[in-house]
Order: sequence, then C-alpha cells, then structure tokens
Amino acid sequence: MIDRYTRKILTELWSDARRYQTWLGVELAACEAMEAASFVPKGTASAVRARADGKLDPARIAEHETRTRHDVIAFLTHVEELAGEPARWLHLGMTSSDVLDASLAILLRDAADEILSGVDELRGACARQAEAHRGTLMIGRSHGIHAEPITAGLVFAGFYSELGRARRELVTARDEISVGKIAGAVGTYASLSPEIESQALSSLGLTAEVVPTQIVARDRHAAYFAALARLGTAVERIAMTVRHWQRTEVGEATEAFGKGQKGSSAMPHKKNPILSENLCGLARLLRSYAGAALENVALWHERDISHSSVERVIGPDATGIADFMVRRAASLVDGLVVNADRMRQNLEHTGDLFFSEAVMLALVHKGMARQAAYELVQAQALATSATLGRGGVAPGQPSFRTRLASDPDIASRLTPADLDKAFDLQHHLRYAGTIIDRALGDKIH
Amino acid sequence: MIDRYTRKILTELWSDARRYQTWLGVELAACEAMEAASFVPKGTASAVRARADGKLDPARIAEHETRTRHDVIAFLTHVEELAGEPARWLHLGMTSSDVLDASLAILLRDAADEILSGVDELRGACARQAEAHRGTLMIGRSHGIHAEPITAGLVFAGFYSELGRARRELVTARDEISVGKIAGAVGTYASLSPEIESQALSSLGLTAEVVPTQIVARDRHAAYFAALARLGTAVERIAMTVRHWQRTEVGEATEAFGKGQKGSSAMPHKKNPILSENLCGLARLLRSYAGAALENVALWHERDISHSSVERVIGPDATGIADFMVRRAASLVDGLVVNADRMRQNLEHTGDLFFSEAVMLALVHKGMARQAAYELVQAQALATSATLGRGGVAPGQPSFRTRLASDPDIASRLTPADLDKAFDLQHHLRYAGTIIDRALGDKIH
Amino acid sequence: MIDRYTRKILTELWSDARRYQTWLGVELAACEAMEAASFVPKGTASAVRARADGKLDPARIAEHETRTRHDVIAFLTHVEELAGEPARWLHLGMTSSDVLDASLAILLRDAADEILSGVDELRGACARQAEAHRGTLMIGRSHGIHAEPITAGLVFAGFYSELGRARRELVTARDEISVGKIAGAVGTYASLSPEIESQALSSLGLTAEVVPTQIVARDRHAAYFAALARLGTAVERIAMTVRHWQRTEVGEATEAFGKGQKGSSAMPHKKNPILSENLCGLARLLRSYAGAALENVALWHERDISHSSVERVIGPDATGIADFMVRRAASLVDGLVVNADRMRQNLEHTGDLFFSEAVMLALVHKGMARQAAYELVQAQALATSATLGRGGVAPGQPSFRTRLASDPDIASRLTPADLDKAFDLQHHLRYAGTIIDRALGDKIH
Amino acid sequence: MIDRYTRKILTELWSDARRYQTWLGVELAACEAMEAASFVPKGTASAVRARADGKLDPARIAEHETRTRHDVIAFLTHVEELAGEPARWLHLGMTSSDVLDASLAILLRDAADEILSGVDELRGACARQAEAHRGTLMIGRSHGIHAEPITAGLVFAGFYSELGRARRELVTARDEISVGKIAGAVGTYASLSPEIESQALSSLGLTAEVVPTQIVARDRHAAYFAALARLGTAVERIAMTVRHWQRTEVGEATEAFGKGQKGSSAMPHKKNPILSENLCGLARLLRSYAGAALENVALWHERDISHSSVERVIGPDATGIADFMVRRAASLVDGLVVNADRMRQNLEHTGDLFFSEAVMLALVHKGMARQAAYELVQAQALATSATLGRGGVAPGQPSFRTRLASDPDIASRLTPADLDKAFDLQHHLRYAGTIIDRALGDKIH
Repeated sequence: MIDRYTRKILTELWSDARRYQTWLGVELAACEAMEAASFVPKGTASAVRARADGKLDPARIAEHETRTRHDVIAFLTHVEELAGEPARWLHLGMTSSDVLDASLAILLRDAADEILSGVDELRGACARQAEAHRGTLMIGRSHGIHAEPITAGLVFAGFYSELGRARRELVTARDEISVGKIAGAVGTYASLSPEIESQALSSLGLTAEVVPTQIVARDRHAAYFAALARLGTAVERIAMTVRHWQRTEVGEATEAFGKGQKGSSAMPHKKNPILSENLCGLARLLRSYAGAALENVALWHERDISHSSVERVIGPDATGIADFMVRRAASLVDGLVVNADRMRQNLEHTGDLFFSEAVMLALVHKGMARQAAYELVQAQALATSATLGRGGVAPGQPSFRTRLASDPDIASRLTPADLDKAFDLQHHLRYAGTIIDRALGDKIH
Repeated sequence: MIDRYTRKILTELWSDARRYQTWLGVELAACEAMEAASFVPKGTASAVRARADGKLDPARIAEHETRTRHDVIAFLTHVEELAGEPARWLHLGMTSSDVLDASLAILLRDAADEILSGVDELRGACARQAEAHRGTLMIGRSHGIHAEPITAGLVFAGFYSELGRARRELVTARDEISVGKIAGAVGTYASLSPEIESQALSSLGLTAEVVPTQIVARDRHAAYFAALARLGTAVERIAMTVRHWQRTEVGEATEAFGKGQKGSSAMPHKKNPILSENLCGLARLLRSYAGAALENVALWHERDISHSSVERVIGPDATGIADFMVRRAASLVDGLVVNADRMRQNLEHTGDLFFSEAVMLALVHKGMARQAAYELVQAQALATSATLGRGGVAPGQPSFRTRLASDPDIASRLTPADLDKAFDLQHHLRYAGTIIDRALGDKIH
Repeated sequence: MIDRYTRKILTELWSDARRYQTWLGVELAACEAMEAASFVPKGTASAVRARADGKLDPARIAEHETRTRHDVIAFLTHVEELAGEPARWLHLGMTSSDVLDASLAILLRDAADEILSGVDELRGACARQAEAHRGTLMIGRSHGIHAEPITAGLVFAGFYSELGRARRELVTARDEISVGKIAGAVGTYASLSPEIESQALSSLGLTAEVVPTQIVARDRHAAYFAALARLGTAVERIAMTVRHWQRTEVGEATEAFGKGQKGSSAMPHKKNPILSENLCGLARLLRSYAGAALENVALWHERDISHSSVERVIGPDATGIADFMVRRAASLVDGLVVNADRMRQNLEHTGDLFFSEAVMLALVHKGMARQAAYELVQAQALATSATLGRGGVAPGQPSFRTRLASDPDIASRLTPADLDKAFDLQHHLRYAGTIIDRALGDKIH
Repeated sequence: MIDRYTRKILTELWSDARRYQTWLGVELAACEAMEAASFVPKGTASAVRARADGKLDPARIAEHETRTRHDVIAFLTHVEELAGEPARWLHLGMTSSDVLDASLAILLRDAADEILSGVDELRGACARQAEAHRGTLMIGRSHGIHAEPITAGLVFAGFYSELGRARRELVTARDEISVGKIAGAVGTYASLSPEIESQALSSLGLTAEVVPTQIVARDRHAAYFAALARLGTAVERIAMTVRHWQRTEVGEATEAFGKGQKGSSAMPHKKNPILSENLCGLARLLRSYAGAALENVALWHERDISHSSVERVIGPDATGIADFMVRRAASLVDGLVVNADRMRQNLEHTGDLFFSEAVMLALVHKGMARQAAYELVQAQALATSATLGRGGVAPGQPSFRTRLASDPDIASRLTPADLDKAFDLQHHLRYAGTIIDRALGDKIH
C-alpha cells in the first residue's frame, strides 16, 4: 500500500487501529449473541465495550504479539488489560478465524463500498461526456486504421456501459464476501450454535458461511479480487483510449494540465498523458493480485494459513489501488479537453471513402447486382485513395463524391439527392443517440 | 486442445465444421431480419439455407483463406460457391465481427451449458457422498494438524456449496457472454438498424451489445474465463483433499482403481491419486487462461484484433479443460473409496484431547472462573499429550477422561454424566446434519 | 496446439510418434549403459532397436493405455510385442519418470533449437532494417508525444539488442532443461548407478540432475517457460511498434500486404496491421503459460504428478507459439514497408522545437546563466508552439529558428553559424551510428 | 511493502530518503563526467555535494511535487534550494529517466545483493541439515504414497541444489539490471556523449544500455522479477515439504516453537507449521509480481510511463518479500526439529515391500527370466500387503522376507546371504552420500 496510489480513507480503513477496532466489534457482537443464548453473563459485552471501545493501542498489541507470535491472542490479552474480568468471557468457544474472517469481510465490504462510490463518480463523468459529445463527430478506428465515423459520445457511452458491468460484478462479489463464521475450530459449532452465529453476524451486516471450515471459503475472496481486476480493465480501456487520442498525430483530446505542472524536464512544452499511462500500469497490478487470490482457494483440509500472507498484502493493495484508479479516472474523464476541431479534421483524412458502403447499397436498392455495384464504387474509391494526402484528397483533385457523380453508370442510377443521402453523416450516425440513450438508461447502483 | 483432456462433444463444438456452420447460422439469421426489414429480397435466406446448410467444406474455405488471408471473406466466397446468386445478399452492411462475435458467443454459451451440466453431475456426486457420510466421523485438520472432529459428509457438503457458488458465477458469465452485435464496421448501424440486429440476435438466443464498437466488448469474455478459473479452484480443492486423504499415513479415502490399471512401473502395489493430481494441474491452466483474457479487454479505439489469437486458443482449451475437469471430478467423487475405519482410527490419534474445550466450558457453566477452568483442564491435557503414541494414549496409560475424573478439583464439579456429555462426539457434532441440510438445500440450477 | 499458430516441424516434434520414438531412444540408451555395466545381457539394445526402432504404433500403445491407464507400461508392452524377449530387459531398475523426463528434456531442447534458429532469423531481419534505416530520420516519441529526432535504424537496433538478451536467457534455459535422470523410483539409484545414468544421458546429449527425486526438478521447466514469455515480450514490443507506425495518422510503416489479401469485408481499401496484432495476442499466451509453469515447481515430497497435465498442454503450446511468433515476426520485419517520406513529414510536425535544448546549451556555453538561457529560449518556443498546425508552423508564420534569430538577447550571443549547428539534425544524431554499430556488434549465438 | 514481511534494511533501501540520495548520486556522477568533458565547470559536483549530500528533505520535495506534478523537477528544485547556483548545472542535457533508471538499477541491484546474501544463509542451513541427516533414513514418497527409502539429507541437498540454480538466475538478472543510460530524451546523446555516460555509470557500478530509448529496456526488469518468482518457488518447495513432514500423521519434522508462542486460541497444544504456510503464500505474491512485470516490456515507441506505477509497487514489495522469505526460510531450516525415530517408524509402515525390486533383480541375476521373477516376488508382496497395518506387518504375521525365504522357488535360488543383501538398506542407499557430496560441492556465489 503506497501513499501515492491510495486515498487516505483507504489507508485508514486498513490501519492497525481500524483492524483491531473491527475485531473488537466482532467479539462484542458474538458476546452479545452468547448473552442472548445464556452462554455468557448478561452485560458482559456492554462492560467490555465501555472500557475498551475506541481505546485499543496497536503498539501494545504488537508487544504482546512479539511474545505470543499469535495476533488474536495478543489482541485478547490487550482487551483484558483494558476491560478486566468481563473480557475473559470474550471469544468463548470461538477460534481466531471466527474473528479474523468476519473482520476481513467487513473491511473488504467497506472497501468495496468506497470503490463503488468511485465507480459511480466515474460513470457520472462518462455520462456527462457522453451527453456533451453526443454529436461530436470523430472517425472510428479499427486496428488503429480509420474506419467509419462515430461520435465521441458513443465512446464515453461505451465506457459507461462497461463500467456498469464491472460494477454489477463487484456488487455481487461484495455480497459474496460479506460472509463470516462464528463456528469454532473446524466450523461445527461444537461449543456454539448456528443461532448465536446468525445473531452475531447479522448485527455486523454479514451472513453465515454455508459450510464453514475453520474459515470462510476462499473462493469468495478470489471472486472479489477478480472483480477488482475486471474493474481495472474497464479503467484501463478508458486510459488507453485517452493515450491514443492524445498522441501528437491524433490530438483529439488531452488530459487537463494543472497549473505549475511540468511535462518533461527536457521539453517543458510537452503535455504527456501521464495520468492515463499511470492507470494502465495500475490495471496490471490488479490483474496480478487476482492471480494470487486464485491460488489461495484450494487450502488443505479444514484450512491452512497460506492464504493469510497473500491477503495481508493484496487486501489493502488491491482495494487501495482500485479505489484510487476510479477516482483518478473520474477526474481524468471530467477534465478531459476534447478537441472537436481536430476530430473533424482527422475525420476528413480519408476523403469520405467511408461512404463507399452507403453508395454501394444505394445502387443495390436501385436494382443493381451487388457485386457490380461493389466494383463500380470500388473503382472510384481506389482512384480517390491514390490522391489522399494527410488532410484528405489533395488540392486540385476531384473528391470521392465528384468522382462517383462523374461515373455514368452510377449517375444513371443515383440522383444528386441519392448521393447526398449516401454522403450524409447525420444519416450515417442516425442511431448514435439511440445507442447513447440506451447505455445511459442503465442507471444501476 | 488435447484429446487427453477434452470430451468428444467439446472437440466437436470447437471444430472447423461447427464454427462455419455457426457462422452460416448467424448470416442467415441476419439475412432473415433484413428480409423482414425489406432490406434484402424475401426468400434469400431460405434459398441459401437450402443449398449451403450442412454442406460447408472447411477444407475449401481454408483454400480461399490461404489466398485472401481473411477468414470471413473466404467463408462467404465458399457459401457463394454453394448457393450461387442469393448468397450475394448475405452480409449486407455487416462487418466480419458481426458474424464472428455472435458465433463466438454461441459457442461459448453452448460450451458453458456443457460445463454446467458437468457441474451438476459433480454436485450430484458430492451430494450423494455428503448424505452417505453424513455421520462418518473423521478428524478435522487445520494447518495439516489434527484439530477437532467433523464428519466426512461435512466436507462433501462444503464442496457442494462451493460448486454452487462457482456455478452461479458461470451462469452469470454465460449470460453476459450471450451477446452479439449486428451493427457494422464501428457499431453504428450505418447501413443497418437496431431492429434488424435485435431480430437476428434474438433468433439466435442472444441479446445485443449495449454500445457496440466493431466488436462485442471483451470484458464479457474476461469474466467468462475468470468464472472458469474459479470453477477450476473448486475442483482443485476437492482434488487436493483427496490427495491428502489418500496419503499413505492418512489413508482415509482412495480413488477407485480400475481393473488392469497399474500404479507404477517399479512398484505395482502402489495406488496413486493420479486423477486428483491431474485435476490440480488443470486448475493451474484455467488460472493462466483467465490472466490472458484480462489482457484482452483494453483494445485500441473501436477494436484491435489482438484478442483474436488469444481466444482461438483459450476458447477451446479453457472450456474443454473445464468440462473435462468437472466430469472427471464427478467420477472421482462418485467412485471414491472412503475408509471409515481408518478415519475412526485417525480420530483416536490425539487421545480425545479435542474434548478439552467442552470440559472447560462445562466447568465454567458450573460456576468456575474461566481461567481457572482452563488451567485445570490444560494440566491434564498436557499430561495426556505426553503419553500419546500413534494410536492414541499409550497402552497402560490413563486416558484423558480418566485423568480428568481423577482430578479432585474437577470431580467435585463435574459428575460422570457431565463428563460423558463433554466427551460425547454426537453432542460435539450435533449440528453436522443442520449444516449438511442447509448446504444441500441450495438446489441452484 | 493449433495449426494456425504452429509450424509443421513443431507439430511433428510434439506428435505421439515422435514422443514414443524418443522414449525408445531413452530406453535404449539406458539399456546400452546397463550392458556396459554388465547389468543386462550384451546385445539387448541392438536386438530391440532392430525390431522396434521406427516401427512404433501410437494407436496400439493407446489401446494398451486404455486398459492399464499407465502410458509407460503401455509403451513397454508394445515394445515387447514388437521386439519379443530382449525387450523384457528394458527399463530394468528404472521408473517411468526416468524415461519421461529425459524425453521431455530432449523435446524441449529440440524445440528450443527451432525457436533459437527463428530468433536468429528475426535478429537478422532487424539487423538488415537497422542497416537500411541507419540514417532514416524519424521523430522519437515518449508518452506517444513527439520528443526529439531519432533514426528508424535505432529502433531496429534496439529490437536486435533486446532479442539478443532474450536469446541468451533462452540458451541458458535450454541448457538448464537439458537434464535427465536414470535413477529409479526416488532418485537413489537403488538398482542402478550414477555411472549407468551418466553414460545413458550423455549419449542423449543430456546431463544428470544433481539431486534427482522421482523426477527432474521443475524449477528448470519454469525457467524455460519464463524465457519463452520474455522472448514473447521482445516480439510484442516489435509488433506494438509496427501497430503504432501503421496507424492512419502516423503512417510511417506498414505490414506487407499479400496479393489477394483483403483488409476488411466492409472496407476493402483498409490495410490493417493484423500480423502485429496477432503477435501481441500470442505474447499474452506465453505470459500465461509461464505463470502455470511457476505453479508446477513445489511438488509434494519426492514428486507428485500434478505438473504433468500442465506440461502436456504448455510444452507443445508454448514452444509452438514461440516458434511461430519469431518466424512471423521475422517475415513481418523483413517485409515492412517503411515510409521515410512520411517519417520526415511527421518530424516536421513540431516545427523544430526539439532543438530548444541545443540552443539553450549553446547560450550557456557562451557564458549565459542557465536559467536565463532557458527562459529566453522557452519564450520563443512557446510563441512558435502557438502557431503550429499539423504540418509544422502555419504558413506565413516565422519559424522557430527565425524567431530565435530575431531575439536580440539571443542574436547578440549566437551567430548564424551557432544557430546552424544547434539546428543541425546530423549533429543531433551524430551518435546514431555508434549506437547501431555497438548493438549489431553483439553477434551472440 | 508491509512491515510484517520486510526487514528494516529493505524498508530503508526503498525509503524516500534513500531514493532521493541515490538520485543525487546519479546527478553528481553525471556532473563529474560532464566536468571531465568540459561540459560544465570544474568543481560543480563537489560544490553541490558539500551542500546537499545527506541533507535532502523528502517532505520538502513532496511539497514541490504537489505543485509541479513532476518528481524529478521537484527534486532538482530542492537541490537548488540547498546548493544554490552550482546546482543549476546539474542535469544538463539529461532527461528525468536518466536519473530515475540509473537509480532504480542501483536500488534493485542493492536489493538483489541483500537477497543473495539471504540465499547464501538459506543454502548454508540446507547444507548443514544435509550433512547432519546424511544417513537419516526416511521413506521417499511419490504422489504422497510411500515409495522407496531415501535419507533426509538427500532432501536438504535437493533444496541446496535448487537454490543454487535460483541463485545463478538471480545473479544473472542482477547483472542484467545493473544498467543505466545518461543519453537524453530519446537515447541519442543529442547534448551528451557515450563517453560522459560511460564514465558516469561506471562510477556508479553500472554499465550502459546498448540501445537506450528514453529509458532502459524493461525486459531487464521483467527478467529480474521472474528470477525472484523462481527463487520464491524454491523456498515454497522447502516450505511445502516441511508442512507435509509436520502433518499429525507424518510427524517427521516440526518447525521450532518459540517460548511463549501459542499455537491456537482454541487448542493451545497444537504446533502448526505457520512459518512454512506463510512462505507458501508469499511465493504466490512473487509469482504475481512477475506477471505484472512481463506486461511492462512492450511500451510505446521510445517509452511510455505505464511501467512506472507497477515498478513503484513491485520494486519494493517483491524484493522486500523475497529477502524476507529467504531469511525466514533460513531460520526455519536451521531450527527444524527432525524426528528421526518417527521417520524410521514411518519407513516400516509398508513392511519392507520396497525391497521387491532388489529381490526380483537378484533372481534375474541368478538366471531367472525377468517376468517369472517378477511374478514370484509379486505374489509374496501381495500376500504381505494384505497383512499390513499402520505399523507394518500385523503382529503374528510372517514378514515379507520370511515369506520370500519360505517360497521354494525363491529359496532354491537365493541364499539367506543373497536375501540379506537385497534387504540391506545401506546397500539400497549406497549412493546417497555421493549425491549429497556432488550437490554440496556446488559452492556457487
């Protein structure tokens, strides 16, 4: 977890202080459920809470752990220091993982909530740009090569939609991880009961593992980190797109450039898409964490603890980075400087050749055989193509439309009005609004 | 895709013949939708179907592809060879990916259906073993070390439950992947319409990509392969457990040994858990494929084709292996030879020390302070522990229960009946049935 | 292993026929060493060779395996069918892995040799382009943004150098994998001897595992697949570069376009960098295989067989793909159509601003304070920058050099000759040849 | 980077203070080389060193970075604050990456040195255990099933040998990463020279990138992190073995148990192999970091900065964890409590059946046909097998040797002395010492 890529709220969420406080919450919830079951004396939990809640000292627990080499025992020793005799009733019939797994579930769930709110921020930014650039013309590209026109709004709508899918998976994963167990050493409730567990977990906003072992099953965690990796790819796609748009030769959009920001120590006038590049790198990290989590599932028998070191690292790191990514991406998208003029210029680069298909189809609908129509149009397209410079058809050369209109086989079938329609960008893009609307209509939360 | 790890039905599903037939299906569905929209002449699709359906020759298409270096154009050329003039109306206004992505969706969906039916088979086997061994006592282990008793049925119920979660994710992924686009070169329906797309896709059992680019978004595919990887970990956990059970020193269960099967060329009497080991290896492959799929999401602009080579490999391989794994695991679980006697012997290994906690809690409920109770019981536990051999307490040494009963501080508080209850395995495992029932009650499909 | 991405020679290398023939070679080498040690009767190996060499029938072995479920026993049964009584002496004191691991080593080594020859082909192509474009000017880019001039030859020299490093690692990995063991069930030579092993392996071109278990240690294989993944990234970098160069707006180089090849079913005039995109996808697969291989190392005790299924898949797939990649990349680089005019045009895009630093340093060397020089130059750079269009400084606007020459503070310090030197591309790139020469001087094989 | 899994020396190595100090070292080395080339005034570096060396304030640099959003510019601003005018000569003609990459190289190299010294510690511990248990008998296991005898020393010798290979790869990777570039914005030495670079780097203990771009090529870093991942698998294999040995039913070795350490909050008498489990988890993290590093290689053109965020995380994390792993593993191996009695008991579990092969070969060498010998021995082996309990042949049942001696067909061929030899464990393991010696003879450093 490095400060550079973590918001304070996530740093705090994964702090020792918060973790121990969460453990205490779990112990107290379990204790209250045991009180209700007449398993421990009434009033125990409230007595402990009064003396320990908010007063835990991580440094003191660390001292105990140095000696006991067992974190939960160290914690309980400290709680007893603070709360005295009533604290001895805590943890009765429980095993360490009863505390640890419920706590991890709470922290991962709360981290997911932060991330989800960031996703909403990012989706909001994408929706705003989709609306703002609903009709901003740009060339669509496949293989990095100009293809046919689109609008910039469509691209943002695509991001919005993809983020919606990532969000849905993360919500599912959040629910799947919101599971604990208060079921003892091997999950049999030997000295406990499903009722105690149910009450304790429900007061923590968790449900019970269906078949607990010593721990909650780790496929749940694997799904959680996979959901973060997928969210990472959605952000990566946005960032990758911005990087392409900001290329010198493309220049269709640029990241906002802060006051005082310097682009390069050698070339101060350069504006580099460093936020987007940064996001692409972070997506790689989320992928890698998901791989480690998948190796954590097939533990030995009723548990081995090999998952723990992995989770201590990737729990904070993956959630911290995912949260950072969606926030940074939101500000990136919101601040993006879209250069509609340049988009329009680039669109003209291929001299209207992208209307070939519309012309060909127009001929077909006038009764011409498809292959014949194809060949007629293709001949003029190739002739035009040979005269293309960087800004479209070279000065003094006939345009593609002019060439088509001069071809007697075409002119005998298509009126100028027919050609107008085939060359009509508005017609070409008549469904752009429909697509954007159906994307933005998906207001999932 | 290697025969050794692929069922014939999956090999067939990913064959050239099936792929081309699926392409034809997509072209015809699109054609019919265009007929309905008066976009191509009525009867076109049925004319083509009559002459081409079931008659495609992959070798011939391969010849065309050698020349054109473009698979869809090679395919269309062949269809035209077979069906003549009406075939020229196919693919009107469409781009290759309109065909390819809908087809891939169909194949991945159909593969998922095979896998899901295998998951059901495997869940069935787990459920049968969970019922059969509902009360079969065995020692639960954490860290590979004996902990407290469980029943073998609980373990199978855990597998059943975990597979249920993997199944749910795969069903979601299957639905997410059941998406196509018939929207042209950059997804704008320039020469098509959302209505044509909707009709075509719905006749194929697909829905439309919300914001198509040239292709269907690849986060959907990433989620699909992640779901397979997760399913793999569920099978891996089963296989890992069997491998532990079959260890010479443990001997609690063994894979069925076929007639004529030989264990080792050097040591013919050995029975090795080779199916389970094999499954553990295959799970690694599924993890690795999921990693590659996550790199496929952030393509350039409206698409680049770098995802294609990855999908050509992992589409068949990951689904073939996942299907193979669940089938093999089903037969593994069904054929597993459970050695209940050995389980019982192993249970006795630690001389009933796992009842310590129950005795301690009994003392507490009789009013003793918790720490005092803990120390009393612990003293006898350690004394017992010192006399443990491999089969439990050494002959001639008092049992743990005898030691406890001989301790005046304990005997003054706990009657023989109290001790009986604390040493009662049935009581210890009183919730095993509850857990198994709630697991098996999850009949998801 | 799919035909599309595998050369025939690799397909053949991983065929059943070749594998069984390799097994026979290992058995015969071991047999000869045992003959020398008077362990089996003289003449055994030659008798078996005469009747079985080149006559193995994979289908027949498959039949035996169906029954025995053990591949090596099935193989030995078949050899005995062919060679009769002498064949019974084969495999004496050996375990299956003695045969399997030596054979795998041979196949991976031979596959590496194929790949290495492909790397040399690719390096040759890069060297040729580095020489051909030693002085071909182009703009260097960081963050996708124009930075300072380079030559195209430098880029190819960089590929050459990187491939050299990948080659070195693969050679090391090839040597590390060229290891077998003929040491029996747990590697102790219980019924064999290090001398027998040494003779057998050396006749196969292998060395002996230092501490054999039942198998050769799997870290060797992990290193091999990691070397392939790294080689994949070197190819990926080439392919990624070509994709950027071929972008419509950049247009600095394009993949060769075959006769009859079609770019797009909707847009036949498009030339897409599909070979390069394909290579980028394949690099992802090599990365993923390396991950699976790393999970194969920590096997149980003296071996478990979980590595086997992984290797059956990734052995052929990773080597087949790596070999395919270097061959395809070689033909890609060799056929690349470099557009030096376009490179030159793009170079002019930023109106010589990349000479800022040289001017600034010239002022400093004339005695001006660095910060003052920086500010003077920067002012003119920003003024120039404001007049930049796509082809450089807009018509009618003064060039950067003119602006500098018109600045009295600059003109008083720098003569026209000084400015000429600062604006001299040849001077700027005076070390390009040095770099290319030192790269191409690395003739590793 | 979490304290729990990082030694202080690595935490310090990756601190802001150390990083900035390293940057300063690079700037000064470059400055001195420029002084030698009369590029900047003599004495500049020493003047800056006198005022800035050891006095950098990370907090102040952070303030500057908040404003400039550029770390190197922020750093240079701070150096100028400290050192005044002479500092303006720093960084002349250089680009940020000239500083950053050389510094990263130094830090990764120094981290590798720490790790390598830890590997030596671990190899030392393995060598000591290999010597100590050179003749300690234990059963070898394949598939988790008893196979034939080995000695515990062989296992440790295997670890030693494997760590030697991992060490060699890490040394190679360390050398490959010990590379910088002082070559300006796109690696052409536009305002610098190869001589300046060479002098600067050599004073830092680095060599020059052969073909620099804006940065040092990232395949070097990928190889470095791959080497760490491989080292991780070597440690994982040790840890996995200990976990198996410590299983309750096996009990052949246990991790040292610290004073005051508690095994489990519910079951205080349990001794769990938690260090080994922890190491297995950490190995997963190293694998995952290697995957991310492989995605960093194919950057755009002369560089994009997407690698940077990845390296900021995995540079510290992967080296910190690798260093921690080898240190922890060293203390684990050194402290391991080997239970030779239990090993011997387990060895007896299968009633000497592992001598079958030796008996069979003795018969063959007496002239019996191999298959006949096999069948004779096998019959007695199966009869013995049927009487095996957990401690070997059941009381009152004849031993395998007795059964063989009672078989007239065997007794007529093998004398008691022959049988003695076939049942001689020392003979069986006569090469154990040879293997251990050849492993330990590999004193690579």
